[in-house]
Amino acid sequence: MKGPVSGHAEGPLAIICGGGTLPFTVAEAVSRRGREVFIYALNGWADPARVRAYPHRWGAIGQFGRFRRFAREAGCRDVVFIGSLVRPAFSQIRLDLATLRVLPRIVAAFRGGDNHLLTGIGRIFEDAGFHLVGAHEVAPEILMGEGPLGAVAPAAEDLADIALAMQVLRATGPFDIGQAAVVAGRHVLAVEAAEGTDLMLARVAALKKAGRIGAAGGVLVKAPKPGQDRRIDLPSIGPETVEAAARAGLRGVAVAAGSTIVAEPQAVARAADRAGLFVAGVGKEFEP
Amino acid sequence: MKGPVSGHAEGPLAIICGGGTLPFTVAEAVSRRGREVFIYALNGWADPARVRAYPHRWGAIGQFGRFRRFAREAGCRDVVFIGSLVRPAFSQIRLDLATLRVLPRIVAAFRGGDNHLLTGIGRIFEDAGFHLVGAHEVAPEILMGEGPLGAVAPAAEDLADIALAMQVLRATGPFDIGQAAVVAGRHVLAVEAAEGTDLMLARVAALKKAGRIGAAGGVLVKAPKPGQDRRIDLPSIGPETVEAAARAGLRGVAVAAGSTIVAEPQAVARAADRAGLFVAGVGKEFEP
Repeated sequence: MKGPVSGHAEGPLAIICGGGTLPFTVAEAVSRRGREVFIYALNGWADPARVRAYPHRWGAIGQFGRFRRFAREAGCRDVVFIGSLVRPAFSQIRLDLATLRVLPRIVAAFRGGDNHLLTGIGRIFEDAGFHLVGAHEVAPEILMGEGPLGAVAPAAEDLADIALAMQVLRATGPFDIGQAAVVAGRHVLAVEAAEGTDLMLARVAALKKAGRIGAAGGVLVKAPKPGQDRRIDLPSIGPETVEAAARAGLRGVAVAAGSTIVAEPQAVARAADRAGLFVAGVGKEFEP
Repeated sequence: MKGPVSGHAEGPLAIICGGGTLPFTVAEAVSRRGREVFIYALNGWADPARVRAYPHRWGAIGQFGRFRRFAREAGCRDVVFIGSLVRPAFSQIRLDLATLRVLPRIVAAFRGGDNHLLTGIGRIFEDAGFHLVGAHEVAPEILMGEGPLGAVAPAAEDLADIALAMQVLRATGPFDIGQAAVVAGRHVLAVEAAEGTDLMLARVAALKKAGRIGAAGGVLVKAPKPGQDRRIDLPSIGPETVEAAARAGLRGVAVAAGSTIVAEPQAVARAADRAGLFVAGVGKEFEP
């Protein structure tokens, strides 16, 4: 069994870098532990200003051959895939020969929902001799702990809503649907599927504004799907999640402690305190 | 046990009339059977041009005392509640004294999700001496039968998507969430909660347009929630449902036969044929 901080310390760590600050939190944490980092920056997603601080190469989504060449040149065997990346628009995808060879498998995975897609992609890396590692394995500090992150804690009524939302996620989990739901006053307002958390929260905000939702308050709850490949696709929150939850009139955000990534925890705590929301990690007793 | 066309033929039938053409389909069907009809038309929802053809009174949502008085004057005991009515904006609600008396119970029901809300409202009518009847009980012709309504029938791949959507609805049913889901290529694209079917379909259309959904085709599936009060809240489809499904790029619409209302079946069949979609009632083997 591996410890929380995974081994394979031979060679630098390749980080396939999507959007947001999270890839750099991981890069810093890994560098701090004395391991070199090579960043494969995804065009249109990775932040150029921050990529520059590390050995890096740019590439598009779909250029698996390009990644494989650069990562091998850099002497990487372990690969982490991290950062925001909504399902890419097809116009953004560039395919190279190596990808075309595995394309039928990607398409097959794409048809089967997010879990299958990501699991399929994971296997393609493994088949090319890479070892796909979870970002939280090399940088456990990115995981949400138990308890509130800011000054506000969930009240008893919030705990009831959190428990109901977790039950909903447990029920929808086998169908590989989403990682989030919104519950207010024991009423399920929204279930996330292909649209993602931000659009789901925007919908709740719009419904409340239109007077279509009677219940006040409410909570956003995120938790990993059962059976999901946690190396690639842990649920995550950041300051913008808290701000979107505030715009939707929610009382707080609850996530599964130990299996949810928090981008910029200090900024999340500040955003929560500013909006008067709680942001809390909840334990196994709540998890789906 | 009652037959499919319910008794209580004493006195006219009160129809609390929301939006759309469905209330008038019911009114015609009931009149055709020789029973008088009294329409309580909801301001802002009922179609004034069509209300005029029947003995009627206007009222706002929330004026239970007003309804009670008029319905008693008209000699009604049986009440049907039919027509489109999204959760009303609070500004549209007018409260009268009789409603204020039962308001705490309505609020309690409102907090508990749709099922509880509608069940709570049902009980309030019963307590005032009315007999709440399902529109499909007095006009069974409004129910969707088994099989396709237009020229197109679901293909084998559609049946697989329909089965998966029905499983999702079965899983979410206990949580009183929604009555609809969209599945494409075995991938759950959307689960309906407080937003309603139209907004859910608009979301799928927007995600496809943005290239955020890889799967082509897909089906909209609607079915009643287990335990739902079918007198007030059967799922329903109309021509606009088919048009919205076409805009979302779906291949068809499947509903639970015998427990889904079809407004204007001929117009639905025409809309389906025009768009090349199937609209099909599916049997018990699919139902949640």
